[in-house]
Amino acid sequence: MPKTELWQWYVEEFFPTEQHHHAVERVYYKGRSAFQDIGIVETPVFGKMLILDGDTQSSQHDERIYHESLVHPALAGASDRAEVLILGGGEGATLREALRHPSVHRVTMVDIDRDVVELSKKFLPEWSEGAFDDRRSRVIVGDALKFLKEDGDRYGVIISDLTEPLEDSPSNPLFCDEVFRDVKARLGDGGIYVLQASTAGFHNMSLHAKMARTLRAHYRHVVSFYSNVPAFDNDWAFIACSDRSDLSTLAERDVDAYCAQLSGENFYYDGETHRRMFALPLYLRRELAKKGDTF
Amino acid sequence: MPKTELWQWYVEEFFPTEQHHHAVERVYYKGRSAFQDIGIVETPVFGKMLILDGDTQSSQHDERIYHESLVHPALAGASDRAEVLILGGGEGATLREALRHPSVHRVTMVDIDRDVVELSKKFLPEWSEGAFDDRRSRVIVGDALKFLKEDGDRYGVIISDLTEPLEDSPSNPLFCDEVFRDVKARLGDGGIYVLQASTAGFHNMSLHAKMARTLRAHYRHVVSFYSNVPAFDNDWAFIACSDRSDLSTLAERDVDAYCAQLSGENFYYDGETHRRMFALPLYLRRELAKKGDTF
Amino acid sequence: MPKTELWQWYVEEFFPTEQHHHAVERVYYKGRSAFQDIGIVETPVFGKMLILDGDTQSSQHDERIYHESLVHPALAGASDRAEVLILGGGEGATLREALRHPSVHRVTMVDIDRDVVELSKKFLPEWSEGAFDDRRSRVIVGDALKFLKEDGDRYGVIISDLTEPLEDSPSNPLFCDEVFRDVKARLGDGGIYVLQASTAGFHNMSLHAKMARTLRAHYRHVVSFYSNVPAFDNDWAFIACSDRSDLSTLAERDVDAYCAQLSGENFYYDGETHRRMFALPLYLRRELAKKGDTF
Amino acid sequence: MPKTELWQWYVEEFFPTEQHHHAVERVYYKGRSAFQDIGIVETPVFGKMLILDGDTQSSQHDERIYHESLVHPALAGASDRAEVLILGGGEGATLREALRHPSVHRVTMVDIDRDVVELSKKFLPEWSEGAFDDRRSRVIVGDALKFLKEDGDRYGVIISDLTEPLEDSPSNPLFCDEVFRDVKARLGDGGIYVLQASTAGFHNMSLHAKMARTLRAHYRHVVSFYSNVPAFDNDWAFIACSDRSDLSTLAERDVDAYCAQLSGENFYYDGETHRRMFALPLYLRRELAKKGDTF
Repeated sequence: MPKTELWQWYVEEFFPTEQHHHAVERVYYKGRSAFQDIGIVETPVFGKMLILDGDTQSSQHDERIYHESLVHPALAGASDRAEVLILGGGEGATLREALRHPSVHRVTMVDIDRDVVELSKKFLPEWSEGAFDDRRSRVIVGDALKFLKEDGDRYGVIISDLTEPLEDSPSNPLFCDEVFRDVKARLGDGGIYVLQASTAGFHNMSLHAKMARTLRAHYRHVVSFYSNVPAFDNDWAFIACSDRSDLSTLAERDVDAYCAQLSGENFYYDGETHRRMFALPLYLRRELAKKGDTF
Repeated sequence: MPKTELWQWYVEEFFPTEQHHHAVERVYYKGRSAFQDIGIVETPVFGKMLILDGDTQSSQHDERIYHESLVHPALAGASDRAEVLILGGGEGATLREALRHPSVHRVTMVDIDRDVVELSKKFLPEWSEGAFDDRRSRVIVGDALKFLKEDGDRYGVIISDLTEPLEDSPSNPLFCDEVFRDVKARLGDGGIYVLQASTAGFHNMSLHAKMARTLRAHYRHVVSFYSNVPAFDNDWAFIACSDRSDLSTLAERDVDAYCAQLSGENFYYDGETHRRMFALPLYLRRELAKKGDTF
Repeated sequence: MPKTELWQWYVEEFFPTEQHHHAVERVYYKGRSAFQDIGIVETPVFGKMLILDGDTQSSQHDERIYHESLVHPALAGASDRAEVLILGGGEGATLREALRHPSVHRVTMVDIDRDVVELSKKFLPEWSEGAFDDRRSRVIVGDALKFLKEDGDRYGVIISDLTEPLEDSPSNPLFCDEVFRDVKARLGDGGIYVLQASTAGFHNMSLHAKMARTLRAHYRHVVSFYSNVPAFDNDWAFIACSDRSDLSTLAERDVDAYCAQLSGENFYYDGETHRRMFALPLYLRRELAKKGDTF
Repeated sequence: MPKTELWQWYVEEFFPTEQHHHAVERVYYKGRSAFQDIGIVETPVFGKMLILDGDTQSSQHDERIYHESLVHPALAGASDRAEVLILGGGEGATLREALRHPSVHRVTMVDIDRDVVELSKKFLPEWSEGAFDDRRSRVIVGDALKFLKEDGDRYGVIISDLTEPLEDSPSNPLFCDEVFRDVKARLGDGGIYVLQASTAGFHNMSLHAKMARTLRAHYRHVVSFYSNVPAFDNDWAFIACSDRSDLSTLAERDVDAYCAQLSGENFYYDGETHRRMFALPLYLRRELAKKGDTF
């Protein structure tokens, strides 16, 4: 960007004392939905960025790191991929990734914020790459909480792609024991529930550990893994829950075999990457081993 | 603005080591014309702001300070207001102010950047308040330099509302002896040439002083005056040039009488304000008295 | 500053949505006194800066604008300058200015924060220029409130150089009717009470107007004036109160005669500058004429 | 930090369009050595930070991630640890880590900037933890380039802890074929040369890949690995070079056995962490497989 155009910035605050400033080339959208403040901007380094309530949700140039992490380990380890349920995921990229495996028959996605879905279709087509129009997609704009209680189906894989359960976030009520029970009721036998699960940096891993502690009461295997997502300025954690599968033990060659079945090419994930994601550093294992409060 | 919406900022750099950051509520436009980078944003404190090449041109909430300063002292002191010429002034607010006096028959405005004019009409109607549609307005999109050479008319008041003659600015070639001569050729006998003339702060008054020094070779009276424009984070200077009138000697009651003839109400300017604007502090008079280089 | 050294910034927040960022060359001090957070830094444009609770108190390169404005109009208009009282003024520059007139016999300065006084002596000697050691100086570290009640002297000029009465500021309890009465009790017949009186920008003049309204109940003449202080990013207002003198009517030549008696040279103030300071723009006069609440 | 103390910031620029802003509680030092601009500050999230030419070198709260990554994989895989050579490493933390293994007889450290070494001793004792005073330490302030040419010893492990070879950096001349040859001449048979090797993010991995390509001409095994260091806002890469050992094949239990021999406790590194560090994501392996230019 020429210096004369370098006047527009997106400032993300991680802590009251830590901020990331991104120069913005273009603002596609800035407004408020019924649920949250929504921004869509373009930056030289990250490309387009989706911003909800001031926090980066994903960036064009590295969203594949996040979405491949969220979707493929779970699908790779699942015994039944026919029915996949996504909670949240308004950008459509989680949907896109799930649809890449031929054994997926239907993906149901429930997001509460119609504006996020519609703005993503309009301004972020690189995220969904046509996934919203796939005949296997069932997109429901509505309350995931209500859906979980009323829906009668069972899913081999349930993917929670909700914003962080910060106070005032629309996702906040979705992180509680009752919802975790409702999710499990929708999960087929031996199914896998995977969720984006906050940050895993040495300085901000306590919320993740709290999520993991809470989920251990519900599942036999509760496994943390994480990837560094530069647009999040953070190591970003996930949790895979199952009564049958422990994703951390998936063999590298089985992951590679799974990836070979996907349409298109991965950017980030394969067997070796899987090995990286599930090998946790000492400080994080120590944190996860601590006792502490739960949701 | 709620904290969750406080992520979009406009950063203006005054010096490499001094910046003003404005939180932005809305971006109306961001793009490049053939001449410059153009931004139109809205901020809680200043309202809408027009930004050219990263510098604030005017803000909704205090543009009257700037435009009343630029237009009315000159018109108040002019012996002939029938024909007024504006160089630059794309927002239309200089035009608006000039049209407020009933003795003004025609205002000719020449701005090189059609995009600034059209975007101002669309997004900044509060600036022009219909002035572009006034039958006394003649708006020419074109090169002021060329216009000055080719136009055959004479004007009682010529108002230069150009951006600062910084390197790479489209206004840069307009600050030179040749243009100053061309301007004078278009000025009626005893006419007044007034120009926005850079900053007047103790730390950035040298460009202003250089302009004043240059103009003294062309006019008998070259008078500096200034107003503080908060959106510019600066005392902003003007220069009034004439072979007949010395605006600094205008009587307070004559200014008030002039103002009483204007349609609508002033926000900033009247006789007492005139007194303020033309009384210069010691450090600025010292700077203006120094010898130095010229354009 | 070379780009590699441009990493240290002082951020002043004026509104939650407006900030000024200054690159810092050097930090002389950062700490907390019993009363406030104190910072002393150096910047390329403003030189050294004193920062209390995150707000600029004065800068090396333009503090003369502020301190000459605060001190000299009052002294110029005073009938008795023998005894001068300063409330606050820890940097010592108000003291310095008051001592410049030969008819001043004694200046009593009362500041509550010993750290500000001692740090200013150590790091900001350019402010006090030896004033703390002048035999006419009486510097008292203590509570101005208590001093006003207990002191038995009368002063021809009382200068209030306190920080703004923001919530949590140590100056906050000093802006109330009771203190205004205590001040008046210490003022000699026809004496002048002058105070720094917050900002006078179109967007932040209401606190100033509230101060002026409050003081009108106590004095016959309550006159606002202001100067632009670039380090404050603002027009900064003062109020001069007296039952005898109206400083706005001081003749330019009388001010010049007064200035000629001062030791050393002024940077900012003289007769013409006085004229500027006391001529208020229309919007500020309108604000001052409004009814409203008082302290 | 209370809001009134939140005015001092350290701004790190990663790209001209990407900045990280850290609120600073305290500035311990800001100055220029003969080689570079040096800053030592304290922030709430990262603790003390060492800043050279505006770039974070290490932070108190996560320097162990960086220094354990740099030192222990190499020492764990080395056949001879008796003599260790560190190029750079002025903070003393690389020295500290190397001294933790009992089979290390001597660590020679050569850093060009005496100021960095002395300031680190004074202000950052948490980094060196007494390592400078260990009788096995030999600290040489001088030019690493010259040392490599003149020194006659051989080392089982050589650790390059130099700043990035950016233009104008004092490390820049140290990244070239000639120096790589000089390093190898100092390396014992089958010895290991490990170097910090720039960033490994998807958006800034090309410098790392260029380093790796260059080194492949010198060693049989050139292995990349990386760790996320939050204070660097980046995945940070390292390269281990050897004609005998391939660190990526070190068994997890051998690493754990090595770690058990260290004095004190690790924060980050052990067998599982080793597995993570050496398993590279797809995009980085693709980048490393590309042909391209070399140093």
